[in-house]
Amino acid sequence: MSMNSFGHLFRVTTWGESHGPALGAVVDGCPPNVALDEGMIQTWLDKRKPGQNKFTTQRQEADQVEILSGVFEGKTTGTPIQLLIRNTDQRSKDYGDISEKFRPGHADITYYQKYGNRDYRGGGRSSARETAARVAAGGVARAVLRELLPGLSITGYMVQMGPHLIDRTRMDMSQIDQNPFWTPDATTAAIWEDYLSALRKSGSSVGAVIEVVASGVPAGLGAPVYAKLDTDVAAAMMSINAVKGVEIGAGMGAATLTGEENADEIMMGPDGPVYSSNHAGGILGGISTGQEVVCRFAVKPTSSILTPRKTITKSGEETEIITKGRHDPCVGIRAVPVGEAMMACVILDHLLLHRGQIGENQGKIG
Amino acid sequence: MSMNSFGHLFRVTTWGESHGPALGAVVDGCPPNVALDEGMIQTWLDKRKPGQNKFTTQRQEADQVEILSGVFEGKTTGTPIQLLIRNTDQRSKDYGDISEKFRPGHADITYYQKYGNRDYRGGGRSSARETAARVAAGGVARAVLRELLPGLSITGYMVQMGPHLIDRTRMDMSQIDQNPFWTPDATTAAIWEDYLSALRKSGSSVGAVIEVVASGVPAGLGAPVYAKLDTDVAAAMMSINAVKGVEIGAGMGAATLTGEENADEIMMGPDGPVYSSNHAGGILGGISTGQEVVCRFAVKPTSSILTPRKTITKSGEETEIITKGRHDPCVGIRAVPVGEAMMACVILDHLLLHRGQIGENQGKIG
Amino acid sequence: MSMNSFGHLFRVTTWGESHGPALGAVVDGCPPNVALDEGMIQTWLDKRKPGQNKFTTQRQEADQVEILSGVFEGKTTGTPIQLLIRNTDQRSKDYGDISEKFRPGHADITYYQKYGNRDYRGGGRSSARETAARVAAGGVARAVLRELLPGLSITGYMVQMGPHLIDRTRMDMSQIDQNPFWTPDATTAAIWEDYLSALRKSGSSVGAVIEVVASGVPAGLGAPVYAKLDTDVAAAMMSINAVKGVEIGAGMGAATLTGEENADEIMMGPDGPVYSSNHAGGILGGISTGQEVVCRFAVKPTSSILTPRKTITKSGEETEIITKGRHDPCVGIRAVPVGEAMMACVILDHLLLHRGQIGENQGKIG
Amino acid sequence: MSMNSFGHLFRVTTWGESHGPALGAVVDGCPPNVALDEGMIQTWLDKRKPGQNKFTTQRQEADQVEILSGVFEGKTTGTPIQLLIRNTDQRSKDYGDISEKFRPGHADITYYQKYGNRDYRGGGRSSARETAARVAAGGVARAVLRELLPGLSITGYMVQMGPHLIDRTRMDMSQIDQNPFWTPDATTAAIWEDYLSALRKSGSSVGAVIEVVASGVPAGLGAPVYAKLDTDVAAAMMSINAVKGVEIGAGMGAATLTGEENADEIMMGPDGPVYSSNHAGGILGGISTGQEVVCRFAVKPTSSILTPRKTITKSGEETEIITKGRHDPCVGIRAVPVGEAMMACVILDHLLLHRGQIGENQGKIG
Repeated sequence: MSMNSFGHLFRVTTWGESHGPALGAVVDGCPPNVALDEGMIQTWLDKRKPGQNKFTTQRQEADQVEILSGVFEGKTTGTPIQLLIRNTDQRSKDYGDISEKFRPGHADITYYQKYGNRDYRGGGRSSARETAARVAAGGVARAVLRELLPGLSITGYMVQMGPHLIDRTRMDMSQIDQNPFWTPDATTAAIWEDYLSALRKSGSSVGAVIEVVASGVPAGLGAPVYAKLDTDVAAAMMSINAVKGVEIGAGMGAATLTGEENADEIMMGPDGPVYSSNHAGGILGGISTGQEVVCRFAVKPTSSILTPRKTITKSGEETEIITKGRHDPCVGIRAVPVGEAMMACVILDHLLLHRGQIGENQGKIG
Repeated sequence: MSMNSFGHLFRVTTWGESHGPALGAVVDGCPPNVALDEGMIQTWLDKRKPGQNKFTTQRQEADQVEILSGVFEGKTTGTPIQLLIRNTDQRSKDYGDISEKFRPGHADITYYQKYGNRDYRGGGRSSARETAARVAAGGVARAVLRELLPGLSITGYMVQMGPHLIDRTRMDMSQIDQNPFWTPDATTAAIWEDYLSALRKSGSSVGAVIEVVASGVPAGLGAPVYAKLDTDVAAAMMSINAVKGVEIGAGMGAATLTGEENADEIMMGPDGPVYSSNHAGGILGGISTGQEVVCRFAVKPTSSILTPRKTITKSGEETEIITKGRHDPCVGIRAVPVGEAMMACVILDHLLLHRGQIGENQGKIG
Repeated sequence: MSMNSFGHLFRVTTWGESHGPALGAVVDGCPPNVALDEGMIQTWLDKRKPGQNKFTTQRQEADQVEILSGVFEGKTTGTPIQLLIRNTDQRSKDYGDISEKFRPGHADITYYQKYGNRDYRGGGRSSARETAARVAAGGVARAVLRELLPGLSITGYMVQMGPHLIDRTRMDMSQIDQNPFWTPDATTAAIWEDYLSALRKSGSSVGAVIEVVASGVPAGLGAPVYAKLDTDVAAAMMSINAVKGVEIGAGMGAATLTGEENADEIMMGPDGPVYSSNHAGGILGGISTGQEVVCRFAVKPTSSILTPRKTITKSGEETEIITKGRHDPCVGIRAVPVGEAMMACVILDHLLLHRGQIGENQGKIG
Repeated sequence: MSMNSFGHLFRVTTWGESHGPALGAVVDGCPPNVALDEGMIQTWLDKRKPGQNKFTTQRQEADQVEILSGVFEGKTTGTPIQLLIRNTDQRSKDYGDISEKFRPGHADITYYQKYGNRDYRGGGRSSARETAARVAAGGVARAVLRELLPGLSITGYMVQMGPHLIDRTRMDMSQIDQNPFWTPDATTAAIWEDYLSALRKSGSSVGAVIEVVASGVPAGLGAPVYAKLDTDVAAAMMSINAVKGVEIGAGMGAATLTGEENADEIMMGPDGPVYSSNHAGGILGGISTGQEVVCRFAVKPTSSILTPRKTITKSGEETEIITKGRHDPCVGIRAVPVGEAMMACVILDHLLLHRGQIGENQGKIG
C-alpha cells in the first residue's frame, strides 16, 4: 500500500526530492530477459529534460540515469531495477525568499499542514523533478512493450495552451518533434510561440492540455471494476503534479452526446471488430477494445510567477510573494513525455495482469 | 491487489452481477464502535434506487440491504462488514435479443473479448446495478465520518445534461431534493424535464455532468505522490460505469488560466488559512487545503437505445441492434448518489491513512 | 491492503463471525471459463464440517455453500465469486458464562483490548468457523488447479498429537480417510483414539502437528524476496487460528544439519532435475524446485476446557473460568482441510503471478 | 503488490544484488519529524557487517549507508527514504567455478528455472547481502519506535547451533554482545566456538536457531485475520534467506501441550492484565497481549561447502561441485540483527495500522 508506488504487477516506486542529492525509481515485476541499457532509458529522459529551449525552466540537469540493479549482461533479470538520477543543479539559494512564505497555488502549504515540515529549498516531492523518475520507469516499460507488443506506439502531444486549441484538421504527427511544444499542428505552434514568449517575458505562466494516444493495444486489457484500464490511466495522469482533469475518449464532452451519437458502431474487419468512431477512447467497461486508447489531461499553470500574490507565512502573518526562481512558463510542455511514460507503465501492467489471470482463454470473435 | 476492491485502509470489495441472485460489498478496515444499522445505509440506497420517477429505469428493485457481519449490538466491531442486496426484478427475458449481439458503446464486446464468456442476460459486472454496492459501502463511510468529522458534508448534484448547463448564479442547495435530477437550479430542472421527456419518448439517451462537493474536509488529507487525494478521487469516479472524464476544481479549464488567475491567494482567517478562490478544488500537491473538495465527472449516455445501430454477433456477422429493455434515458441521474458515496469512502480512507502515518504531528500555522 | 484478504492475483477476502447470520468469502482474480458448481466446493467443506465424530465439536452446522456471483452456466466468469455459508446452530446461550470473563489462551481479551468491544456469544472472527470460508475458497482454487495443473495433488494429514508422533515408516496415504484424525499411520491412529478419548472425557484438549504436501508443483513458482513461495505458505498457515509454528521441509530441524546433510544433491532425470533428498521442502530461494512442497504447522490446544483457570473480567476483577460450550478436544483435526485449502490458494496465486510476470520465458535445463 | 516490498503502512522495498554496484531500500510511509541520520542506521548495519570475526564471511564490506531522500535537516519528512549501500568487495572472480553449475541447496537452480537467467557471479537477490537493506530499513523503524514506543526493546540472540542448545537457566542478556554468536549463554558460546572452528576448518557449515524478543509492545497490535501480528512476523522472518521454520511462543512445541498447560492464566496487575506464563508468545488471535512478543526461526546451513556434492550444469549434465568462495560457516550468526530489524519493521507497521483504524477507541480493562 505504498503511497509512492503505482501499478499492480509492473510496479514502480519513486523517491527523491528536487533539492536532495538524487531521485529515482525502483521498478518491480519487470519480465526477465528483456534487452535494457541506460541509453534506452536516457532517450526518454532527454525528451523531458529541462533547459532545452526558452520555454522550459533554465535549470540545467543532465538527468543521467544509472541502472543500479535488475539488469545483468544487458538483459533484465526479473528482479527490482533501481534507476538513479543525480540532481546536479539545485541552486537552492534562489529559493530563499520562499522559505517562510507559502506560494499560492503550490503544495508548500499543504505539505506543511500535513507533515509539519517543509523543504523550503524547493518543491520536495511535489516538484516536477519527481516526474524524471516516472519517465525513467516508462523507459523500462517501453523496452518490455517493444518485445511483447511490437505493434504498440504511444504518442503524446499538446492540443491546447491557454485559450488556443489546435485545429485537428491540421494534425500531422511528423510535426510533433519539430516545435518546442510537442504539437502536431505547426500553425498553432507558431501562434503559441508568440503567445508564450509574451507570457514568459511578463513573468506569467499558463495551462495546457496534453493528449496521449496508444495504438496497437490489444482488446481485453483492463480489470473491472476498480482496476479498469481507464481508471488506472486516469489515476496515473492525475497523479502527475499540476494535473487537474483527465478525459478518456469523448471525455467531459460525453455529457453532450446522445446515445445515438455516442454509440461507436461495430463492423467486422479482416482482423476482428472495427468501429465507426471512437468516442469510447478505446475502452468499454474498463477493458480495451483494440482501438486507439485516447487520454487527455489538463495541466494548470505553474504557481511560480513574478506578479505579487497575497499569502501568509508559517507563523500566520499575511504578506505578499513573488517567485523569482527558474521556472516553466508552460509546465504542460514537459508533461508530454511524462504522460507517455505513465501510459506505457499502465499498459504494460495491464498486459501482465491480463496474462496472469486469463492466460490464453480470451474470447475470440468470428 | 484485488481488482474489485478500492481504498487503502478503509477498503471496499464489491461483488455480484445484475442478473444473479444478489450483489454486495465487504467493507474492511472500518473503525470499531461506530453506531450502524441497516436503516442508516438504506437511506442512501433509496436515493439511488431505480424506478422512482419516469426518468430512471422502470426496473423495480427494493434494494434492501442486509448486514451479515461486522456489526454487533448496533455498533461496528472493526471486522469486515458484509452488505448484501438481493436482486428481485431481473426479468432477464427482456434481454433475449442481445444474447448474440454486442451493444455498441457497451461493455458486452470487451467482456467477451477479455473473459471469453458473457452473461447475456444483462451487463453482469458492468451494469449500473454494481453501483448499489458502492452506495451501501458509502453509507458505512458516512456513519463513520459523522463521528470522526462531524462538520463534514458531501453533496452531489447535476450541473449539465446534454447541451444544457445550469446557471451557477441560480444555485440553491435546498432545491436538490425537489426535482428528479438532483440539481440545485430549479429553472434548469424545468428545461431538463421537457428535454429528457422528449428524448425518452424517442427511445434515445443523453449524457450528463455531476458535481460532488465535500465541505468540512480538514487540511492535510492525501498521500503524495501516487495516493494523492485528487488521484484517488479521480480513480474512484472514473471507476463508476459510464464515466469518461473527471475534473478537480478548475478541471480541464485549468488549461485556459494564467498563473495569476489560477493562484488562489491565501489570507489568514480566524481558524487558519482562507483563500480568495478555489481553482484548486481544495487540493494542492495531492493534499487537502481545508477548502471545499470539488470534483466533477461526465457520464456518457446509456448505449441501450431504440434507434438501430450497426453491430456484429459473437460469430463475427454484421447485423443491427435495438435495445428494448428498461433503461435510463439519462443514467447520470442515478450517478449522483454514487459519486457522493465514492467521495465519502475516499475521504474516510484518507482520514484513517493520515491518522496512521502522521498521528498528531501535523503542522500548525499561526 | 485489506486485513481480511490474502493472495496477490487470486485474492480471497473472508468475512463473518461464528454467531452472526452467515459467513463467507469473496474470491477475486479467478481465471474465467473454469467449471465450477456448489457441489465441487461442498466436497471440501464436508471434510472440515464439525460434528462428524466424537472428536470434533458437536455443533451441528450444515455448512452449505451458496455461490452468489461469478459463475454463469456452470463456469467461472472471471469476476468475483461470492461464497456464502449460513450459520445454523449458533446456540449462543451456551456462552453466557464467558460474556464478562476472558478465556485464558483465547483471543477474547486481545479483541477487546484492540477494538473496545467483543462478541461475547463466541469467538467472532477468531472462531474456527472462519476457516469454513477458507475451505470454500480453497475449493475454487482446486477447481482451477485441476485444469491448469492436472498433475497436482495436495494432501494434508496429522503427524503429531500431544506427545505422540506418527512413525513415518508406516505411512500409507490410503489410510488418511480411514480414521478420524486424517493420519496415514493406522497404528498411531489407534493410539490417538484412546489418548484423545481420555482427554475429551476429562474436559481437556491437546495440540497437534499437521503436514501438508503438494506434489506436481512445477519449478519456478514464488516471487522473491517478500512474496517467496515459502513466505506466502508460512503466512497462510500462520493466519489459521491457533497455529503457533510453521516449517518448510526440514523446518526447525534445519538448525541441526550440516551443509553436507542439508544439500539436496541434484541429478538429471528424464523430465528435468531430480534430487537425492528434499530438506528444502521443494523450495529454494523462495522458488519451487519441482519437488514436493512440504509444510508443517503446529496447532495449539483449544482454550475451552473444563478445568478452572484464573482470569479477569472486563472490569478488571480477578476470577476463575470454566468453558462449558461444545468444543474440539483436538482442534488440529479440523485444521487438516484448512491447511490443504490454504496451500491450494497459495499455489494457484503463484501460478498466476508467475504467468503474469514471466509468461513463456522460463529457463530450461538440458 | 510489489514482490520486493513488505509492510502495510510502513512499507519497505529492497533492491540490489550481491555483485552489482549497490543495493538498498526505499522506506515509504515513515512518520514525519523523527530524528534520523546515517549514524543511527549505521549502528545496526555494523552489527550485521561481515568479516568481523572468523565465523563470518571474510568478504570485506564497509556497508556504509547513504540517505538519499526523505530526511531534511536531520528529521524525516514523511516522504520516501532511500537508503543506498554500495558494494565494494565483490571479488566476483572467486565465483568462476559456479557459473555453469548449480550449487545444491542454493537458489541458483530455481532462479534459473524461473527467470531463465542467472547472475553467476553470486547469489544475486538470493544472497545474504540483501539483508543489509533490511537492517538499514530496520534502523529507520527503530528511530521511529524510539519516539512512539520509548519503552520498547527488541533483542535477538542465538539459542541453538547444530545440535547444541543454550541452557535457558544461564541466560544473561548482558552476555549477548560479548561473544561472536550473539548468545546470552556464555558457557554455550564457548562450546560453539570450538564446534564451529572445527566445522569451519573442514569447510563445512551448520544451521542455527535465532530468537527475537520484543518487550514493551502495547496490547492491541495486529489486524486479524490475514494481517495478524504473528502472521506478519512469520512472513517477515520466513522471507529472510535460508530460514526454514518460524515459531511464535511455544511454537511447534504447542502440539505437545494440553489446554491446561497452554492457557496463560490472567491476573490483574497495577497497569493492566498480567499473565502466569507466555506460551502465546505475546499474541492471541493475532493481536498483541502486552506481554513479550517471542519469535524463533531456524536458519539452514549455507550450501557453500568444500565437500564435493553432486549437481548438474545448465545444459543438464551431471557433475560435482565444490564452492570455494568466502562464506559463513554458520550464516545464522548474521541473521540475528536481520531478525531484529524485521521485528522492528513489523511492530512499527502494526502500530501505525492500529492508530489508523482504531485511533483512541481501544478497549480499557478495569
